[in-house]
Amino acid sequence: MANDQQGARYERGAATMKAIGNPAPGPGRERFPGLPPELADDVQQKLVEFCFGDTWGREGSHIDLKTRRLLTIAALVSQGKERQLRGHLGGALNQGITPEELTEAIIHLIAYVGFPSGLTALEIASEVIGSRK
Amino acid sequence: MANDQQGARYERGAATMKAIGNPAPGPGRERFPGLPPELADDVQQKLVEFCFGDTWGREGSHIDLKTRRLLTIAALVSQGKERQLRGHLGGALNQGITPEELTEAIIHLIAYVGFPSGLTALEIASEVIGSRK
Amino acid sequence: MANDQQGARYERGAATMKAIGNPAPGPGRERFPGLPPELADDVQQKLVEFCFGDTWGREGSHIDLKTRRLLTIAALVSQGKERQLRGHLGGALNQGITPEELTEAIIHLIAYVGFPSGLTALEIASEVIGSRK
Amino acid sequence: MANDQQGARYERGAATMKAIGNPAPGPGRERFPGLPPELADDVQQKLVEFCFGDTWGREGSHIDLKTRRLLTIAALVSQGKERQLRGHLGGALNQGITPEELTEAIIHLIAYVGFPSGLTALEIASEVIGSRK
Amino acid sequence: MANDQQGARYERGAATMKAIGNPAPGPGRERFPGLPPELADDVQQKLVEFCFGDTWGREGSHIDLKTRRLLTIAALVSQGKERQLRGHLGGALNQGITPEELTEAIIHLIAYVGFPSGLTALEIASEVIGSRK
Amino acid sequence: MANDQQGARYERGAATMKAIGNPAPGPGRERFPGLPPELADDVQQKLVEFCFGDTWGREGSHIDLKTRRLLTIAALVSQGKERQLRGHLGGALNQGITPEELTEAIIHLIAYVGFPSGLTALEIASEVIGSRK
Repeated sequence: MANDQQGARYERGAATMKAIGNPAPGPGRERFPGLPPELADDVQQKLVEFCFGDTWGREGSHIDLKTRRLLTIAALVSQGKERQLRGHLGGALNQGITPEELTEAIIHLIAYVGFPSGLTALEIASEVIGSRK
Repeated sequence: MANDQQGARYERGAATMKAIGNPAPGPGRERFPGLPPELADDVQQKLVEFCFGDTWGREGSHIDLKTRRLLTIAALVSQGKERQLRGHLGGALNQGITPEELTEAIIHLIAYVGFPSGLTALEIASEVIGSRK
Repeated sequence: MANDQQGARYERGAATMKAIGNPAPGPGRERFPGLPPELADDVQQKLVEFCFGDTWGREGSHIDLKTRRLLTIAALVSQGKERQLRGHLGGALNQGITPEELTEAIIHLIAYVGFPSGLTALEIASEVIGSRK
Repeated sequence: MANDQQGARYERGAATMKAIGNPAPGPGRERFPGLPPELADDVQQKLVEFCFGDTWGREGSHIDLKTRRLLTIAALVSQGKERQLRGHLGGALNQGITPEELTEAIIHLIAYVGFPSGLTALEIASEVIGSRK
Repeated sequence: MANDQQGARYERGAATMKAIGNPAPGPGRERFPGLPPELADDVQQKLVEFCFGDTWGREGSHIDLKTRRLLTIAALVSQGKERQLRGHLGGALNQGITPEELTEAIIHLIAYVGFPSGLTALEIASEVIGSRK
Repeated sequence: MANDQQGARYERGAATMKAIGNPAPGPGRERFPGLPPELADDVQQKLVEFCFGDTWGREGSHIDLKTRRLLTIAALVSQGKERQLRGHLGGALNQGITPEELTEAIIHLIAYVGFPSGLTALEIASEVIGSRK
């Protein structure tokens, strides 16, 4: 965030994160306390700028934020990324996507990724949704 | 398709395939001419019944057919399934999803699956969309 | 399980699960307590019907139940599905597959999936087999 | 193959390849004509020694050669390795595994790896089996 | 490339591509002729800016450009991305990495990704290296 | 380790492990206490001989031990092998690779494997590096 150029992309990313119900991004050195602090900050900045500023927050986008969340969840289920899936399922609920929609989306994916990936995702969804009750 | 029970699931599947712009399912022994014919037919029946009857065609579904196609495409991009991706991108166009929406969806996925998977998917999308012009 | 058609596939699945030493399938809403209860039940029904009724329990099958378990384990090792692997290794022991056969099968896979996937699977197998002593 | 030690493992591997219907291993520099010749030979030697000598040809093995082929095929289907799958399906036929058994094994895997991986494998199996008729 | 901010990242990326022996990036609409032209250009810009400007071209980097190429190749071999692997192997040769180093790196990976992924990568390397002779 | 032939490869492997800062390999039956003891020992022997003797310890190698570690880490990040990644990151530190180099290597990979795989790897790196302080 050393100059104005980066600042503009970062601001758009942080605003998009707020709009979709994600927690505000803290400093990278707090998220990754063991890493060299400047590199940890760089990663966090990259994440905010590229994922949320340039990707989720694209100008003139042809798909809406709800579709973006479901696409993200489909990618995480397909790759078996359990840690990230937990976070994005929570974000989806914050964003107003219903437990029925999330569960139905994962059930749909079973045909395309197989039962093991699907059942693991449903176990995680059960924990995330259950923790909100 | 030996009895009425299987017939009901198969009919629902074939109707759903028609509704989403997929070609009508032919006999498995024509699709897989080298396989033992009865087993080839079984596979095709399983595909129609399970993927299209039980999954895409679920009663009281909480997500619509356009969302189901985008989820399917996200799973195929994430797994690098190039043959199947080609077919589902064509189906998506038949279903009325625009080239802009498909391209935007794959661009979104780059952040989650990396550039190599994303660029390969965009090359296939370019061929599929280009062939319709 | 709303009608007789689904009941027949479910019964075959439950019978196959018993035959291969898997625990009896309980209601989905108990397995996935955080999910919408009707959807959780649907998933469990799909699992029993499709995986165990239509797949493991296929009529006139050309491969036996022991081979089916080993194929399943190979798929789980290759995909790195640790949660599901644990369950299927336990099921294999219940089914009468020996610790020597299971270990040898995973050792075989090392050449095809690499040491990291193989060693992780052997660590899980060590825990599952060790817990039976 | 610079010394007697390597020779013993290589001989066992080549004998195992013959026993399971694989073609005899030629020199690596013929298989990989663009690579530095000594390195190409090293790779081929590694393959014969490790995969076929130490793995398929293990002394006192607890699983038979037919099971080893099916496990190998399951790993290839699960990872989507199309080039290698083609070779191992041909080898399986040479080894006396029937088209019915191979097809049934891949159908089994659909539940665990999803339809896209399964259908792609069945298309390849259809080509390999069909080419033998 | 609508404003000066994007221009700076793009210029750095294009300069890095030149430095590592990659071809100059043309317009996205030429690379992806079937896609909506503005979106195709966006993707190409993203690629130049993020992969080559922000990643390969990071200021104050702790690893050199040769290491970055080998890391990239390792990621492509591990994921089985054949199209991209072909391009990056050619780029590595342009960059001055020797055929011996590339072959040795892929041989190293066999232990970690298994023989099928390793042999496929060596077949591609044989074609790329052979075509330069 | 029943004969002199195996002993030579094992010794080379154990020496290489020492040279790169890995802990000395104990008996397989201690690492995998639940497995049949002879098979557990076989696996450990295979690991030492093939990964460290034949692979890391190759005579006349064209790449150095630091490059081999980074390639290994790239393969583990790409495949999402969290257990093994933890061990190899610790080994890399023992070998003299700096926290800055490790972090930078994983940041590089984000472009090629996506943010979810990259961020998970950075979380593990943060724990491993942090535990050494």
